[in-house]
Amino acid sequence: MTTPPDVLDAADPLADFRDRFLIDDDVVAYLDGNSLGRLPKATADRLSTFVTREWGGRLIRGWSEGWVELPVTVGDELAAALLGAAPGQTVIADSTSVNIYKLLHAAASVRPGRTELVIDATSFPTDRYLVESVATARGLTVRWIQPDLVDNVTPELLAGALSDETAAVLLGHVDYRSATLLDLPLLTSQTHDAGAVIIWDLCHSAGAVPIALDDNGVDFAVGCTYKYLNAGPGAPAFLYVAERHLDAVTQPIAGWWSAADMFAMAETYEASPTIARMLSGTPPVGGIIAVQEGVRLIAEVGIDAIRAKSVALTTYLIERLDEAGLEVVTPRDADHRGGHVIVRHPRAREITLELIGRGVIPDYREPDFIRLGLSPLSTSYGEVDAGVRALIDVAGAAG
Amino acid sequence: MTTPPDVLDAADPLADFRDRFLIDDDVVAYLDGNSLGRLPKATADRLSTFVTREWGGRLIRGWSEGWVELPVTVGDELAAALLGAAPGQTVIADSTSVNIYKLLHAAASVRPGRTELVIDATSFPTDRYLVESVATARGLTVRWIQPDLVDNVTPELLAGALSDETAAVLLGHVDYRSATLLDLPLLTSQTHDAGAVIIWDLCHSAGAVPIALDDNGVDFAVGCTYKYLNAGPGAPAFLYVAERHLDAVTQPIAGWWSAADMFAMAETYEASPTIARMLSGTPPVGGIIAVQEGVRLIAEVGIDAIRAKSVALTTYLIERLDEAGLEVVTPRDADHRGGHVIVRHPRAREITLELIGRGVIPDYREPDFIRLGLSPLSTSYGEVDAGVRALIDVAGAAG
Repeated sequence: MTTPPDVLDAADPLADFRDRFLIDDDVVAYLDGNSLGRLPKATADRLSTFVTREWGGRLIRGWSEGWVELPVTVGDELAAALLGAAPGQTVIADSTSVNIYKLLHAAASVRPGRTELVIDATSFPTDRYLVESVATARGLTVRWIQPDLVDNVTPELLAGALSDETAAVLLGHVDYRSATLLDLPLLTSQTHDAGAVIIWDLCHSAGAVPIALDDNGVDFAVGCTYKYLNAGPGAPAFLYVAERHLDAVTQPIAGWWSAADMFAMAETYEASPTIARMLSGTPPVGGIIAVQEGVRLIAEVGIDAIRAKSVALTTYLIERLDEAGLEVVTPRDADHRGGHVIVRHPRAREITLELIGRGVIPDYREPDFIRLGLSPLSTSYGEVDAGVRALIDVAGAAG
Repeated sequence: MTTPPDVLDAADPLADFRDRFLIDDDVVAYLDGNSLGRLPKATADRLSTFVTREWGGRLIRGWSEGWVELPVTVGDELAAALLGAAPGQTVIADSTSVNIYKLLHAAASVRPGRTELVIDATSFPTDRYLVESVATARGLTVRWIQPDLVDNVTPELLAGALSDETAAVLLGHVDYRSATLLDLPLLTSQTHDAGAVIIWDLCHSAGAVPIALDDNGVDFAVGCTYKYLNAGPGAPAFLYVAERHLDAVTQPIAGWWSAADMFAMAETYEASPTIARMLSGTPPVGGIIAVQEGVRLIAEVGIDAIRAKSVALTTYLIERLDEAGLEVVTPRDADHRGGHVIVRHPRAREITLELIGRGVIPDYREPDFIRLGLSPLSTSYGEVDAGVRALIDVAGAAG
């Protein structure tokens, strides 16, 4: 018998942070914070001030009063709070897809002569599509890892794909379906042993799982900010390049924001010597400000405390799903799972739609998955309880 | 002797539209609306509603309640109001730089076998840098047109650069410094006669000058939305691909938003048969909503009425600058100029800084230009008068 949710909420050291978010009463249980995080109240206030006072009031002067530096300064804040990365290696820019594209070219540029890119066949589609298109453009071959969905990319599978032809490996830190958390230190080290570089897609781990990019010698990383960072729909992504690669790395979209002196309007292009060389065009100021608010909230709480709550939430949810006899696909060992839980059900799509009609909001993923995302700062145990009750009711499982 | 500004304001049929914008009293004259447009009050309201009710209230459901379609639906609205383009050819996405990059690859993809890209050496830096990098990546040669700043790209100069090796031409419709308005119909037709395709960069014309992409058979176009479209700092850009190219065109950043069915999470990539194939990653919803508000304001007024006011404003400004003996670089013939005016002065940088200190805000452009941007919907003749008086005072010219 699991502990009652009200007891768990009363004992939750992060319970008060739920008040930092707009919680709408018409939502019985929001179980999709890993697709789109809730709105922090501070972000709503900050965006309102930004629109009327900064854009409306300062107008073009805003660029010289701090906007220009935002991609790098907020990148540094995010790196410190979430990524275990020193300053000067991270920017906020573009979308995750555009950044994956840049990093695939960047990774290939530091391993010239090598002919293969390695990726997991169960990766999120945009990762796979971009690896294929960059491979075609550069005349490289894609080596596909074919993992089991739950075990995902094991050291054995990666070993089978690596060779002295491997230029770069792209892996998702937490699988977008199973929530499997890969062994970042070990897989990074293995990749380096083969003389290749690694790109970690942190979309489903950033803000939920502690990450130590510098300590593990990660080469490149990318992630999105609208999930656990709560920066809003289509908020700009982040991108990390280890300092040791900055001199040598090139990226394909060499717009004016990547130039050494962008306001010199120089006749010939010279890439910035800093991480700004990974930028391209004018950055979305409001979007980056929302990222900054999301990062500051996480920094205030601390990623370790967030991870502890995340593990407790997913553990509670899995226990309840087990009791109901529903098929949980996500790893049972908390050390191997991220912040969401996947249920497999033949009527997954219909169940998801029915739940949404009842104000319980999970996510559906092809072909037969119901994804339950628990956002440590805004999800209460009571909310998980309400969601599970509704799911059991709709799925017709044993209570 | 020019007509007094209060008389001109009283007779201005668009004068009332100034009230649609936030006008801050600490700004004496805002003469940089072509770098960053003022904030429309409706946009401030709409963004506030979007943040609290749509993101905060609807959460992930927003994507299925209209957000997913925004890149295309707002693209269509913009195309109808500003571009003279039928639906299905325009999207709102990414930054201008990223879109120029995509279109250069796209243009080359529909002219395989041809070996040259043509661009004007006085183009805005991001255009030049991207042409160089795409040419390098694809093994193409850049043919540089070397125009006089004011006459800019004449048919004679373009003729000298075109050959049966030309794959694509990239030209700016209105020059970012001189404001020279190029002959889009003629230069497009010339390019086609050489068997090449053309990309028009509309950054400095969109929202100020009527554009007829379909009627002129333009192949590709791109432009930004934070200038005359008033969509805010770093708002997403637009991109146009003529319908006749949609089947054949490929673009390099093949993220999940460009796929035929992005939620199918398909094993193999298939490009969307629609203009959506030009998208890459998750679009910035708030940014696109701000574009939509900017477009709707322009649609309400009508681009022809906006152009008439723009011509009247720049004519008035040039007369005043001439009276003061300042050196105006912008074309005198209104048919050959966009919505801004450039003054050349050896102390341009110092003068600009001094003016900003007085609440008069122009733009400085290397090496010796003061750029005065007049936004037809929000700039009054009184404001231009105040700006000119301050400029004369600071520049020490004859009053």
